[in-house]
Formats: sequence, C-alpha cells, structure tokens
Amino acid sequence: MPTPTPSYSITVRAKIPNQPGMFARVATAIGNAGGTLGAIDQVAVQEGYKVREITFLAGNEEHSAEIVDAIRGVEGVEILGVSDRTFMMHQGGKIAMVNKHPLKTRDDLAMAYTPGVARVCMAIHEEPEMAFQLTIKHNMVAIVTDGTAVLGLGDIGPLAALPVMEGKAMLFKEFGGIDAFPICLDTKDPEEIVRAVELIAPVFGGINLEDISAPRCFEIEQKLKERLDIPVFHDDQHGTAVVCLAGIINALKLVGKSFEQLKVVISGAGAAGVACADMIMASGTHDVILCDRTGAIYAGRPDHMNSTKTAVAERTNPKRLRGTLSEVIRGADILIGVSAPGLITLSDVKKMAPDSIVFAMANPTPEIMPEEAGPHVRIMATGRSDYPNQVNNVLCFPGLFRGVLDCHAREINQQMKLAAAYAIASSVTDRELQEDYIIPSTFNKSVAEAVARSVARAAQTTGAARREIARWRWGG
Amino acid sequence: MPTPTPSYSITVRAKIPNQPGMFARVATAIGNAGGTLGAIDQVAVQEGYKVREITFLAGNEEHSAEIVDAIRGVEGVEILGVSDRTFMMHQGGKIAMVNKHPLKTRDDLAMAYTPGVARVCMAIHEEPEMAFQLTIKHNMVAIVTDGTAVLGLGDIGPLAALPVMEGKAMLFKEFGGIDAFPICLDTKDPEEIVRAVELIAPVFGGINLEDISAPRCFEIEQKLKERLDIPVFHDDQHGTAVVCLAGIINALKLVGKSFEQLKVVISGAGAAGVACADMIMASGTHDVILCDRTGAIYAGRPDHMNSTKTAVAERTNPKRLRGTLSEVIRGADILIGVSAPGLITLSDVKKMAPDSIVFAMANPTPEIMPEEAGPHVRIMATGRSDYPNQVNNVLCFPGLFRGVLDCHAREINQQMKLAAAYAIASSVTDRELQEDYIIPSTFNKSVAEAVARSVARAAQTTGAARREIARWRWGG
Repeated sequence: MPTPTPSYSITVRAKIPNQPGMFARVATAIGNAGGTLGAIDQVAVQEGYKVREITFLAGNEEHSAEIVDAIRGVEGVEILGVSDRTFMMHQGGKIAMVNKHPLKTRDDLAMAYTPGVARVCMAIHEEPEMAFQLTIKHNMVAIVTDGTAVLGLGDIGPLAALPVMEGKAMLFKEFGGIDAFPICLDTKDPEEIVRAVELIAPVFGGINLEDISAPRCFEIEQKLKERLDIPVFHDDQHGTAVVCLAGIINALKLVGKSFEQLKVVISGAGAAGVACADMIMASGTHDVILCDRTGAIYAGRPDHMNSTKTAVAERTNPKRLRGTLSEVIRGADILIGVSAPGLITLSDVKKMAPDSIVFAMANPTPEIMPEEAGPHVRIMATGRSDYPNQVNNVLCFPGLFRGVLDCHAREINQQMKLAAAYAIASSVTDRELQEDYIIPSTFNKSVAEAVARSVARAAQTTGAARREIARWRWGG
Repeated sequence: MPTPTPSYSITVRAKIPNQPGMFARVATAIGNAGGTLGAIDQVAVQEGYKVREITFLAGNEEHSAEIVDAIRGVEGVEILGVSDRTFMMHQGGKIAMVNKHPLKTRDDLAMAYTPGVARVCMAIHEEPEMAFQLTIKHNMVAIVTDGTAVLGLGDIGPLAALPVMEGKAMLFKEFGGIDAFPICLDTKDPEEIVRAVELIAPVFGGINLEDISAPRCFEIEQKLKERLDIPVFHDDQHGTAVVCLAGIINALKLVGKSFEQLKVVISGAGAAGVACADMIMASGTHDVILCDRTGAIYAGRPDHMNSTKTAVAERTNPKRLRGTLSEVIRGADILIGVSAPGLITLSDVKKMAPDSIVFAMANPTPEIMPEEAGPHVRIMATGRSDYPNQVNNVLCFPGLFRGVLDCHAREINQQMKLAAAYAIASSVTDRELQEDYIIPSTFNKSVAEAVARSVARAAQTTGAARREIARWRWGG
C-alpha cells in the first residue's frame, strides 16, 4: 500500500448512525485500507444520525478512492460528499492583489490617481531611481517560466505551470516578505523569452527564473544578466547549489575535511549539477567531476556533449578521469545527486573515501534511498522533507532576494551566493550540528533574515548594491 | 492665487508656543496665503509649547512652499518637518501581493507547493480551461502600457508611468474586486508590444491597454484582439466612449431627442474621439463629424490624414462637410470634446441647435469651462470631479471587466460595450435624472455591479462567454 501524504488529503462528508462504536468502525475501515486518519469535524446532528467531515491522507489517487470505498462499505454509513483538499486550496488561485491604502473618498482618489499621481510620475521621470522609493519596484520579483521543466513533470507549458509559480510566489511572501508575480511565457524560444523579460523589467526589482529546461536556461540567464540592471537568478541552478553548499560547509565541520582536499563527484550535468560544481569550486575544491548518463565529463570527450558540457569540462575533472560514475566514484569524499531516481547504487557508495557524504537530491525519489545508503555513509541528505537534512531551495531564495531588494542590487554575483550559503550554514549552531542536522529547518524563519543581511553586505562590499542599508524592511 | 486641491495636501509639523490665540494666528496665516486648512493633530505637549501636525491644501508646488513660509513667519512658531501626503502615500508603492492561504506547516507546503501542486498542474495540462478554476487567471487583468501617452504628461516612459498603473490597479480592486497587475513595457514598437502581451497572456483573464499613444494604440489593440482568446480593451478609447454614451443616453431623455435624428460634432480625432464616434453611430446616429486641428475630417480630405483618419472618414461625416469646427458646428445637437483646453469657443456653442449638449472632456482643463458655456447650453459635462456630470472611466472598466471575468469571456464586443453604457445610464433613476445629474457618482458602487451583470448577459447572448454565470463573485 502506498505511503499516505498530505498532498492526497481527502475530506469525506458522511452520515453515520448515532450508535455506540459506529465511528470506531469508520476509523478502522480507513486504517485497514491504509489511510491515515486526520481531523474529524461534526457538522450536524440529525434524528439518529451524525454528519461528520472526516479528513484522511492517502498515497495516491487510486488509493484515496479505495479508502472512500472502504468508508462506504461500513454498514449504515452514507457518503454525502468527497473533496480533495489540495484542489480545494487551489480554487480561484492562491495569491491576490491588495491595495495598501483606502480609496473611499475623492481626496484618496486625487492622491492615489489623477491628478496627484502626475507629480509622482514626473519625479520618477526626472530621476528614474526614485522608482525604488515611489513604486512597487523595490519589493517586486518576477517569477519567470516557460513551463518546459516543471517539477518532475517536464514540459507541461506555461498555463499548467501557473499553480507552481503561484506557490513559489506564496513562499516569497511568507518567508521573505516579498511581492512576487508569475510571468508564464507562451514561447520556448530563448531569444523571445529574453526579450519579453527585458520588456517587462521596469516594474520589477529582480527576476527569478524558474523551471526552464537546460541548456536553454543557461543562455537565457546569461543574456538577461548582461542586458538588465536588476538581479537575475535561476533558482533551479543557484538556489539548489547555494543550499547544497550550505550543507557541505556544515558536513565538513563534522568530518574535519577542508574544501581544498576534497574529491567531489556529481551525478547529473543539468542546470543544478553545473551550478553545484561551480559553487563548490568557488569554495576552494579543485577535484570536481560531473557525470551524465554517458559517464564522467572530461575535456575532449567525443560523445554526448553540448556547449554547456564542453564549457564545464574545461573547468572540472582536472585529472581527466574517464568511465562511468561507478568507476570515477572510487575514493570520492562527496557524492552529489541532481539526476534521477535509482542512478546511484550501494556498491557506488561503498567505494567512497571514509566519512563519505552523500546528497541524493532527485525529487521525489532520490538517486539512492537513505534507508539503503544511510548505514554506509557518514552524512546523508536528500531533497525530501520526510528524511533528515532536506536540501530545500526555500532556505535560499526568499532571504537572498530580500537582501538584494533591500540594497537595490544590480546583480547577484558569486560572492553574494557564497554569503547566502555561509549564512544558511551558520543558522545551525555548533551545539546543534550533528550528522542528521547539517541543514536548518525549512520553517526556521531566522534563516531568511540571516541570508538577507549577509547577501546585502556582500552586495555592498562587491559594489553590486545601489544603496547602503539603513534599515530592514520586512513585509513590504 | 491657485485653487487648493487634495493632490497638493501638505502636512507640517510645527512647534507652537502654548499661548492663547497662537493657533488662530497660524490658521490665519495659512488662510491669508490661500491655503485650505484641513486636519490638525496634537502630537506632543512640551514645557510652554505644543507640537501639532497641521494639514493644508495648496494649489501647486510653489504655492505650498509659500504657505509653509507663511506659517514659519508667525512669531514663535518653529517648523519641525514638512511632508507631502501624495508622495507619502506612494512610498513603497500602492499595491501588494497577499497569500490566500496560510503556509505555516509542512502540510500547507505539501498542498500549495510540491508535491501536491503537481496534480493540479496535470489537471490543467489535460484540460486547459481548468486554469480558470484552479489559478489566478479567472480574476487577473494585465494593465499594459508603454508609457507613451500618460495622463496629460505625454511620453514619460514605462517606469515613470508605473504610479498611474498602480493607481489603476487600485481602482480595479476597489470598484470591481479584480486583481490587476501593471505591465509597463520598455519599448515603443507596436509589434514588440503585441508580441510581449501575447507571451504573458496565459496568466491573465483580460488585458487592459492604458495610456498608449494614437495611432499605435489602434494597431496594437486590433492585433491583440485577433491573436488572443481573452478580452482586450483599450480603456482610453472605449472606457471614455462607454461613459460618454451613457451620459448622452440620459441627456437625450431630458431633451426628448432620439439618436437617429442627432447631429454630433467631435473635437479630437485621437483614440477617444474615434471610439466615441463609433459608439454613438452604433447607437443609431448617422450624422457624426470628427474634427482635428485642420477641421472636419471627410472622405478624400487631402491633408493631415493618416490610416486611422482615412478609415474613420469613410464611415463618418456622410454629407462630407468641410471647414473648421466653428463652421461645421452650426445646428449640431451634441458637441463632444476629447481634444485640448480652450479648443471650443462660446461663439461655437452658440451656433448649436436648441437644447444643446456639450461634453468638454479634456483633462485637467476642458475645451470650454462650464462657467462660460453652461448658461448657453441645456446640458454640460466634463471630465472633472469638481463640476457636475463627470465623465469618469472608473464608472465603466471595473464593472465591464468584472462581467467578462465572471463569464470567462473571449472578447469584448460592441454589444457588450453598449450594454455597459446602458447599465451606467440606468444607474441614474428617472426620478433623479436632471440636467446636472445625467451621470452617476464615481463612488456609487452599485454601478459596477449593474455594468457587470449587463455585460455578462450581453457576452452570453452574443456567444462571447465561455460559461453561464451561476453566481456572482466579488472580491476575488
């Protein structure tokens, strides 16, 4: 039976005879069918009956139907309605606009709109940087996608990607106090995407690229960075790399190794793999080997290359190791998976150096499960919330963008990303630090604040900031 | 001295000696300098002094400085600070994003974001129209501008136009319960504007074009209407025309004339002028004459024509009248000004037919002032809130878009605009109707609801609606 999960949370409205033991029979039916019983609300009491709303978790669509059938099978019970809480939560969308000021009188209108607004427009016309003070720009991020690489779903298009972008906007608001708006572009042409983002840029203080397939995402990000004077950040690459690096920083404290002496193997040479390699190298490691399905990538490899792999081959794998991941893994200190379920075997893990560190981040199923690899490695991390050490981008992007927005940054450079990684790592204190707690909790709100401060400081040090931070603005 | 207006609302923080008559002297100073005294707040009481915040209205920037000087001139008074309430209201922008659901637990995350959101994405991928149910699309309008014709300010660019677009978004929310987002495009190329809007369209249920200069706005609107399956509405054209027509509908009830027998002259052949002509002709009037600075536009006119004027010449001015506005105005029943201050003279107005109707809508200064024309016409309307009969677009667009969003309309057709005009007109009851009350108040919230119902009904009748309206959703 599949494991119940909150993403299949079902509420059943049922009419249950008012007899002793009846509800226990319903609860047993749910349990026997493999469901996890949640909240129970009493809705109404009728002659001889109670109407209850019973919420349970199932493992998938089929499973939830089976559980509903099991409830229906309890004699005397009548099902009045079934609703899927995930779909209910999405009804009408998950985000909305609000006005920050009332608009109830002619005076309100005369200030917020014509004729008063004209003076504000002219102030910006005369000094464009005033837009950071007098408009939404200072706190507004565009979440840009073309829907080509959405979660594990692949190329589902811009419209079907919208629920993910709305969810991302919610995370921006909840964890960073940032206003973020979904821009779902109806094209796959990189040049059109770049141009569209350039055209809409005036309203935004930053651009978050999301779920755009590789290698197109590299070209799009690069061109936008060149053409825009606001930060551009491809979260699937750099967000993952920053949080991964934060985990490595803390893991190295436990195993007593330094970046300079590491051998790191990365399974997966897509957007996240290349970004992880670059972040780790920027931290001092030379011996980083990226592997794709063909095996280790090295300068001059004849087959299955593209422009990105050719470029990354020049700066990684200094010994030009060849062979499969299973071959090049021997003696590695760290193995990072940003590829696909099952691509790492236990025999691979066993070939690593002592005190081995494995980050298996494929979602939802890791390259190797913690139950299997765990006993044979010193430290294990995944992308999942139901195992220790979750590498979750939400630890990075809200604080990172909070920092760049607060200092009106022009870009996000390598030093700012490193600052973010060290801030996340430092959110786990030395006293807390242990093998199963190298990465702070997703719900630790102090992480975003620490990241924001560090990133803004790095922006000021490196000249990326337009202004000194005088105060911290949260909640926009 | 200039007339004080709420758009120059200034708050002065002043330290005033705690002596009898001191505050009266401050108030007198403000009055003598031509300011209008507003709210007075006591902030603190100190030894021998009171600190007060005094708000007054001025007529312009210079005038407000003079009034501040006048306060400073009162002996014993010290000014601690001066703030401009319009600029204060714009600090940080006027709109923000909010989450509709809390995001406090892992279960919340699992439903709003990964992994739960994947099922919602796939439901839309399989049936795209589900996006109207499961995303923000059903209630989201893009306010698109290139900043080329902003208010009376002209081509100030997309960034400086943003405060106006934010104000417009506030009006959408306040009067229509609609989420609207500013899209300020950094290009003036019509084809690029069209393409950018096409690309961002998936997220939106409607497109409101705003402050785009003529004749580019005609081409942009036309192409977008052809290429998109959601409504596209250029408010400067059609919003003005709808409210103008509503005023005419009611004016004709008072003067007892019918559309068929009218002679209408329009001063101004820009976006609004052409739209007004088309709406009036769609209501049954044949004899409509558009005038530009060269005079009456007629088929075959040799000079100062463009593609828009050539096209409109074919369908207006059936008698091919030639000459200046002052010449063709003779015997006209209605004169509509959508041009520039002072373009209509009293001698023009006096040449009109009995029971003449003048709509002088240039902003902020009408083509002819009501004080001058009023005594010589039966009915007078302007675009200003400080005279009777204000032709204000806010009477149209929130209700119109509410209607099209509620029925998931594919377009806004002529019948839907006519329905909006008649709904606005009907919001003034027969008992209320009189010469100085032909157009309902901007703050009459029942107008938007009436417009929404009528527009949705017209959309259903004409096949523009994707669905029947079962219920009315307000506040998104």
